[in-house]
Amino acid sequence: MTPTALRRPTAATVTPAATANRTGTAPPDAGNILRRCRDLTAPALTEAIDGLHPWVAEMARYALGLREPDGAGPSRGKGVRQALAVLGAEAVSGPGHAGVPGAVAVELVHTFSLLHDDIMDGDALRRGRPALWKAYGTGPAVLAGDALFALGVETLADTPHAGGAVRQLTTALGDLVGGQADDLLFAERPWTGPEAVCAEEYATMAERKTGALLGCALALGARLAGAADCTVAELDGTGRHLGVAFQIADDVLGVWGDPESTGKPVHGDLRQGKKTLPVLAALDATPGGGELAELLTTPGALDGDGVRRAAALIERAGGRTRAEHEARRHLAEARARLTSLRLAPGPLGELRTLLSALADRTV
Amino acid sequence: MTPTALRRPTAATVTPAATANRTGTAPPDAGNILRRCRDLTAPALTEAIDGLHPWVAEMARYALGLREPDGAGPSRGKGVRQALAVLGAEAVSGPGHAGVPGAVAVELVHTFSLLHDDIMDGDALRRGRPALWKAYGTGPAVLAGDALFALGVETLADTPHAGGAVRQLTTALGDLVGGQADDLLFAERPWTGPEAVCAEEYATMAERKTGALLGCALALGARLAGAADCTVAELDGTGRHLGVAFQIADDVLGVWGDPESTGKPVHGDLRQGKKTLPVLAALDATPGGGELAELLTTPGALDGDGVRRAAALIERAGGRTRAEHEARRHLAEARARLTSLRLAPGPLGELRTLLSALADRTV
Repeated sequence: MTPTALRRPTAATVTPAATANRTGTAPPDAGNILRRCRDLTAPALTEAIDGLHPWVAEMARYALGLREPDGAGPSRGKGVRQALAVLGAEAVSGPGHAGVPGAVAVELVHTFSLLHDDIMDGDALRRGRPALWKAYGTGPAVLAGDALFALGVETLADTPHAGGAVRQLTTALGDLVGGQADDLLFAERPWTGPEAVCAEEYATMAERKTGALLGCALALGARLAGAADCTVAELDGTGRHLGVAFQIADDVLGVWGDPESTGKPVHGDLRQGKKTLPVLAALDATPGGGELAELLTTPGALDGDGVRRAAALIERAGGRTRAEHEARRHLAEARARLTSLRLAPGPLGELRTLLSALADRTV
Repeated sequence: MTPTALRRPTAATVTPAATANRTGTAPPDAGNILRRCRDLTAPALTEAIDGLHPWVAEMARYALGLREPDGAGPSRGKGVRQALAVLGAEAVSGPGHAGVPGAVAVELVHTFSLLHDDIMDGDALRRGRPALWKAYGTGPAVLAGDALFALGVETLADTPHAGGAVRQLTTALGDLVGGQADDLLFAERPWTGPEAVCAEEYATMAERKTGALLGCALALGARLAGAADCTVAELDGTGRHLGVAFQIADDVLGVWGDPESTGKPVHGDLRQGKKTLPVLAALDATPGGGELAELLTTPGALDGDGVRRAAALIERAGGRTRAEHEARRHLAEARARLTSLRLAPGPLGELRTLLSALADRTV
């Protein structure tokens, strides 16, 4: 646990390193922060799942990585969203457990969105195991997602001042659906010409698809701990910028990442023809699209060596540099928003640690 | 519109016929009641849909029958649930428009459940048109369902005392998911023996899958008009009994209904091997299952004449009689609950008219 002394609501100018110097202990790293928040949330999350229809609960435990179908060890997500909700409560000087209903709600909603997105995107693997729709069938996976969605909302309906909390979640849900709709529609648009996807549209999609729920997590935690509306709104914005940075980092890894550490095939996003920022930025900087556009639009051209050639062309046209610049810009914006608020220094330090680790994809 | 004089909150002993005699006008029939409530709800429903992502809104309008893909005329649902929400508000002497957010929410949630159920059940047709997943693809139909679900919750989050209203909806949603899970699992269970589905399990499934949202509609309308908790709970129970009666009537039509009026193939449920009450009751009354069990379990035996033979065996074993008796019993229970409450006579009369028409499947 964070020492209580660190939660005083003083101006937020203390860095994690400075905090460590003051207290004489090393600040927790991102892994420790995530673990502490997961441990705080776990009992309520387990209790919520236990109340579901038994078959649906079994699927929910599989999806959340709480139980393998053969009884083997768990394959959990990192719990980023639940950590943001707990830290959101602590950052406004509330107790971490005040944020727990928010943590449970966003974790359930995040899992719901993964279940349904895997169906929509035809992704057969999730965290190195068969996706739920592969393990149980499409229909049951749709149903399990619906159950988690309803349970997430129900968790908030039981909190004081439920209207505001539910509204915060449904706004994020609306964005989540809109972002996923945009992403699906991007796939049908051309790489070049007036109908091509531009970098601004990409940023809007990423904010909705990835940022909305991260923002909601932070905002819900703070709201449940009694924060003022303007603080809640700033924290929502913080999470949204973090989400765009996180998504861009994911895109860069999707082209240049080491398959050993990403767990994804090398150049996977390129082969699938995904409209990610590095590619869009490279095309934007290449009049007429050049050789890159030709590779992307010629059937079979990305098989074998073509995909390496495309990656090199994207890098040469500045697509990687621009994407990394954009990720840094959104991370800086997220940090600036945190700094502008009068947050408790201990949780603020933990939030900063988590933001950096997420944007660098080191957790 | 119902004349204002009919909405006085006096004890509810006036039948629709008596009401008509007092005012000198014929009481509205079920079609008129549904139309009035649809007209009252339509502007808010349209406004809610218009706020969705444009592509998702297009799918939502198709699913709600507000617009055909080729611009042709609408193919609407009857709007039973929205009518129950409006009448729920009026029955506790509130204005009909107080129930409109509830009407919008249950209509959206009902449409969401149809979209996802059609995917799960592989039903390619809905109201004589391709189901949304057939028209737009499975992934987009999952997404459109999610959007309607979120929008339904959001509609209630903006009402006063949102917590209770959202809780009412999420409880129904939990039941809806549980009922659908039971229904999917029934398909995998045997017709006879200790693992067979019994009539009590069927009733529980029907109450959750069909009754929960009908009960929620009535209860939400009353709750939004300021009714006491006990009145809200009784109206919820009313709708749940109505739902079981409605589902059983649907099952009887699924075996003996005229395809001309049901729009479904004759003996369709039997051919698909659905575990409906008439079949379960007939097997229950036949030691060892007899010839009926043999027909149901022998591959290909229900092709051609076999299905007519099965229908005759179900009728002879008393399956149809027992199902019709159960439907009447649940309808009587729904009516008794309405009568026990001090509801405004005009709306009470309309509710009774609607209950009868629904249980008889004449609307």
